[in-house]
Amino acid sequence: MGESTAPTAFVPGHVTAFFGVHRAGDPYRTGSTGAGIVLEDGVEVTVDPGEPLSVTVNADAVEPGPVTAVLETLGVEGGVRARTRLPPGAGFGVSGALALGTALSANAVADEPRSSNELIRIAHRAEVEAGTGLGDVVAQARGGVPVRLEPGAPPHGVLDGVPATARVEYLSFGQLATAEVITGDTATLTDAGERALDRLQGRPTLPALFQAARAFAAEADLVTPRVAEAVDDVTAAGGEACMAMLGETVVALDSGLSDAGYDPSSCRIHPGGAAPGRFSSFQRER
Amino acid sequence: MGESTAPTAFVPGHVTAFFGVHRAGDPYRTGSTGAGIVLEDGVEVTVDPGEPLSVTVNADAVEPGPVTAVLETLGVEGGVRARTRLPPGAGFGVSGALALGTALSANAVADEPRSSNELIRIAHRAEVEAGTGLGDVVAQARGGVPVRLEPGAPPHGVLDGVPATARVEYLSFGQLATAEVITGDTATLTDAGERALDRLQGRPTLPALFQAARAFAAEADLVTPRVAEAVDDVTAAGGEACMAMLGETVVALDSGLSDAGYDPSSCRIHPGGAAPGRFSSFQRER
Repeated sequence: MGESTAPTAFVPGHVTAFFGVHRAGDPYRTGSTGAGIVLEDGVEVTVDPGEPLSVTVNADAVEPGPVTAVLETLGVEGGVRARTRLPPGAGFGVSGALALGTALSANAVADEPRSSNELIRIAHRAEVEAGTGLGDVVAQARGGVPVRLEPGAPPHGVLDGVPATARVEYLSFGQLATAEVITGDTATLTDAGERALDRLQGRPTLPALFQAARAFAAEADLVTPRVAEAVDDVTAAGGEACMAMLGETVVALDSGLSDAGYDPSSCRIHPGGAAPGRFSSFQRER
Repeated sequence: MGESTAPTAFVPGHVTAFFGVHRAGDPYRTGSTGAGIVLEDGVEVTVDPGEPLSVTVNADAVEPGPVTAVLETLGVEGGVRARTRLPPGAGFGVSGALALGTALSANAVADEPRSSNELIRIAHRAEVEAGTGLGDVVAQARGGVPVRLEPGAPPHGVLDGVPATARVEYLSFGQLATAEVITGDTATLTDAGERALDRLQGRPTLPALFQAARAFAAEADLVTPRVAEAVDDVTAAGGEACMAMLGETVVALDSGLSDAGYDPSSCRIHPGGAAPGRFSSFQRER
């Protein structure tokens, strides 16, 4: 099936600012609480029905991870092609985007169409069971500045948000292994995440989110030296920055990284969630 | 405060395809179930702090309606200016947009910032108590093709969606009085709305939504002669159309109204919900 007719979905990127891990026997009740920022820079995911199962990101073959389970659940056989300017494994939710984008695209050719919540459940479960993420899918489905009050997929997960928009900058120094952190001893981390969440709920603004994220990263002992230096440089220059969980990546409000002398990528907070169609469906001429 | 600094929010339009009325003592539990379509054509709402209370839509003064309660709850005094190409009172959720857009904009200058869900609650309550709407605010906060499974604002209301995007056309013949319909005897209407909701949940697609909407409009006896004729013309030409609840307005999938010889407005389904900033925050150059 050609480029023009194969179903495609756009899933925005998501950086987690702080989080707590919540495991349950039920994968739909397993997930993370916390908060993050959804980015206009995201992932376009195309399913080519009838092709052999393979997953490519910018034409490079990658492990199928959660994609296999998503396609099986929907009863669709196909190849999955993703295009993105986000670096994989660096805390931008590319894995969640592959799962959710595959669900949205494959649904368009499935014999039995599903609702939005059903697709979120399928993608969330696949991420949890593949060990690639706990909260990106529900955040990417919502958009904006998602606050995950209760873990899990619909109808269990409960979301709120910080009602704000802004330009953001990001700079990645490398990958961190999500699975190693979220399957290890997470008690200290989760305590720190709950304190950060309480703080943000008391004042749901973007500066408060960054401040809570810095306190969390210090308490949870997750900051790498290069990230610590860049975050300190941004705050010393009067900006707001934090580490993206989990990647060796720094995110800053507005021109925070540029102002501190770095050469970051930039985009806006994406006000919407994942949706069928290309990114251009968010664009229009007035 | 000038155009450049006064806080502004964009709220997409929303046409309800079918609905049921659910009244409770608690305004947060009062609302409607049903489904609809969120439109890129929406309302930009600006709050000018410190100005006397007034509400203008495209520079014309209108009744403040729910806006007064929203500003009072947030402790903000100001004037509210809205710009839109949508006709008021014709089933596009302009009233809900004024309430939610005022909440999002006023929050930016409020002493005590609120979360997204808190702002949705404030706007929903104001709409319910003003009698201007029951389900637009939660739908406009979500975006896409919202399905309202349980009535009310967070944490009571439960939303799902039809995972689809499309171009849509709309044509308005005039106004209908929402308050008269939703405060009258709504038992027959609500029964019809529940049947339509069951049907859509069995097959959550856009064609199924339009079919369920036409069955609802006939069972609830809400169709005016001009709307009935236009809907029939579109379906006779092989398209999908339904009446917008509640306005003397027809909405069609894709080029349905044009194909039937009408001269409609058109836009795309808006994949995101209401957000701070102008509509242009959804746009970007790649």
